Amino acid sequence: MSIGKLLENVRNCAPLVHNITNYVTANDVANVLLAIGASPIMADDEREVGEITSLCAGLCLNIGTLNSRTIPSMKLSGKIAKESGKVIVLDPVGAGASRLRTETALELLQSVKPTVIRGNMSEIRCLAEGIGGANGVDARAEDAITEENLEASVSFAQRFSKNTGAIVAITGKIDLVTDGEKTILIRNGRKEMGKVTGTGCQLSSLIVAFLAANPEEKLLATASALSTMGLAGEMAFQENQGNSSYRTAIIDRIYLMDSETLEKGAKYEYFSK
Amino acid sequence: MSIGKLLENVRNCAPLVHNITNYVTANDVANVLLAIGASPIMADDEREVGEITSLCAGLCLNIGTLNSRTIPSMKLSGKIAKESGKVIVLDPVGAGASRLRTETALELLQSVKPTVIRGNMSEIRCLAEGIGGANGVDARAEDAITEENLEASVSFAQRFSKNTGAIVAITGKIDLVTDGEKTILIRNGRKEMGKVTGTGCQLSSLIVAFLAANPEEKLLATASALSTMGLAGEMAFQENQGNSSYRTAIIDRIYLMDSETLEKGAKYEYFSK
Amino acid sequence: MSIGKLLENVRNCAPLVHNITNYVTANDVANVLLAIGASPIMADDEREVGEITSLCAGLCLNIGTLNSRTIPSMKLSGKIAKESGKVIVLDPVGAGASRLRTETALELLQSVKPTVIRGNMSEIRCLAEGIGGANGVDARAEDAITEENLEASVSFAQRFSKNTGAIVAITGKIDLVTDGEKTILIRNGRKEMGKVTGTGCQLSSLIVAFLAANPEEKLLATASALSTMGLAGEMAFQENQGNSSYRTAIIDRIYLMDSETLEKGAKYEYFSK
Repeated sequence: MSIGKLLENVRNCAPLVHNITNYVTANDVANVLLAIGASPIMADDEREVGEITSLCAGLCLNIGTLNSRTIPSMKLSGKIAKESGKVIVLDPVGAGASRLRTETALELLQSVKPTVIRGNMSEIRCLAEGIGGANGVDARAEDAITEENLEASVSFAQRFSKNTGAIVAITGKIDLVTDGEKTILIRNGRKEMGKVTGTGCQLSSLIVAFLAANPEEKLLATASALSTMGLAGEMAFQENQGNSSYRTAIIDRIYLMDSETLEKGAKYEYFSK
Repeated sequence: MSIGKLLENVRNCAPLVHNITNYVTANDVANVLLAIGASPIMADDEREVGEITSLCAGLCLNIGTLNSRTIPSMKLSGKIAKESGKVIVLDPVGAGASRLRTETALELLQSVKPTVIRGNMSEIRCLAEGIGGANGVDARAEDAITEENLEASVSFAQRFSKNTGAIVAITGKIDLVTDGEKTILIRNGRKEMGKVTGTGCQLSSLIVAFLAANPEEKLLATASALSTMGLAGEMAFQENQGNSSYRTAIIDRIYLMDSETLEKGAKYEYFSK
Repeated sequence: MSIGKLLENVRNCAPLVHNITNYVTANDVANVLLAIGASPIMADDEREVGEITSLCAGLCLNIGTLNSRTIPSMKLSGKIAKESGKVIVLDPVGAGASRLRTETALELLQSVKPTVIRGNMSEIRCLAEGIGGANGVDARAEDAITEENLEASVSFAQRFSKNTGAIVAITGKIDLVTDGEKTILIRNGRKEMGKVTGTGCQLSSLIVAFLAANPEEKLLATASALSTMGLAGEMAFQENQGNSSYRTAIIDRIYLMDSETLEKGAKYEYFSK
């Protein structure tokens, strides 16, 4: 199926997406889901998350401002989503920055078995190898995926995917998505997107929408979400623009994205040695 | 009193509005209250909400991300606001999507007796008839108020208003406000406003500001808030605009709204069979 | 050192800033820290805040939506930051509006001994003199710093600084920063900034970034942060602009601010009788 068709499916399907997410970027996550044609709901109280997950087509677990009240809610929602075969995306924001983040992400990985885990390379390495990230919520410079370390990065991601059973999506200068067998590289996006808070969080929730609408094409649907976000970032960029209007423009571009524009602008390829 | 005068009163009175609200749209709610000339305060800890409510001219209870910590705070604030005769608006976000939401909204309705209850038709039907909404925080398509079902919708809203003692404001393609006797229909707004998260939350807090500044004209003040929001949405709209810049433009238009513009642009009428 | 050089140091140092802050303005705080070249992390669970503070160059404690869960986290983070000699800024949002706010701010002031305390005059007077503010989170009109009461305001701030050991930054029409001995007055900014929620919260976190990057110049670094924010507000302002696009434009201007522009536009002077 073409990548543009996958986007069309999101717009036609209008999936309801349950987000247990952080309060820093929740508004952007809601607006980006509306922009792609999905419908967001945020709910994090243990007494309701089960019902909310049951209503929805998929679930995004984002640990950006995790706390003692919401961690059990994430586990419960994840369990219910899993039992009913719904899409789950785990965004391990800041894994490595504290034991609570690392352990919560690992527990969710093990108990919930998410469909997709999406993070930067530092977060993913922390979960895969127990190496602590030391730069807060951003990737360490030495963890960038580059043309030079591409083969090693792909091997690493494939192993992690096989070990966890999850599609692994690692975002950075080059994005990489793998199901353990096939791997797609995406070269959309701009480095300035890192100066806008929440582009990662937005992407994780977009992945839920793409997968919920395209359950038969999980690997390519994940790549489509990454391409859509990256291409929107390219199209929204202007010289001498601040990060706050860039933030607005990126979401606008997702709202205005059509399948033809995505087809033309998407830069992705299947990896082969 | 003219609808423009009611807006002027808000700007002159500059009411302090206490919001116990969700973390998804709290920033927009604060900015829209500043835009209308009111002053927002968000506070949700049980140990302080009583004092904060006492300081303020009115209270907005929004259950968008309700939780075990904030539900008792809502009840306490509501009680104190009621005892001192202050305006209370209840926004039952997502009522019907979970038992916790439905029950909390019903409890607040009964114990607090809000001045106004504002929601979409699915939320209001859930509270009035126990019919669960099945579309998250958005209204079900079959619940839209249309020219065809207008008379039945008005009768329904009037009954619910009489049963609860609250002004009932139902927003949708056509908005409807009733105190059980008189009913005002408002035909401002655009459907694209539904693609911006939080326009409903913003509206509920705006209603508090309009009522606090116009305590003798509660029905018309509620209608004015709806007209102001809807007209701002009309004026802010542009073709080929994304939902994120539309979000910004709507709040801007409320900031710039004057009584003359509102008088000219408001499309409302008293309902008669 | 020149004020422009202090800004350059922030951009070169890229300090990681830990924020325990409110959910109303957290997104703006994150984006403004990215705009100045710093890196934000928000974390408020007691089980992780110690580690997060240890990772970071400085800490901002903002009580805007304080609650029973986050108050102990603020105390713990403050203690750890203090022990390791890290910058701490306390923003006592709404002190005086409730006993919980006033007492929490006073406790943090005493136990944590912040490097800087930044608030409006009503908040600072409440903490210094036990006088309750009665206008929510905004300063009372009678508390404005004006040319007429400047000398008395400076004396007051100097006494409070000596009593607390903190640099005191009071923002309003005229801003005032003192370490108890030397005092800097800043005349940047516009009154319309008060119509954008969170400009104060943003400023407090910017101060952390400036101090973390300029530990030898704490007084002037605080003044630089105030000048940067105020100048951005001046440059972002346009006639007939709403508060929501003004919000975006202010953060953009901080993103685009360079040392030369800041040098030219900063309006500050050391106070002398």
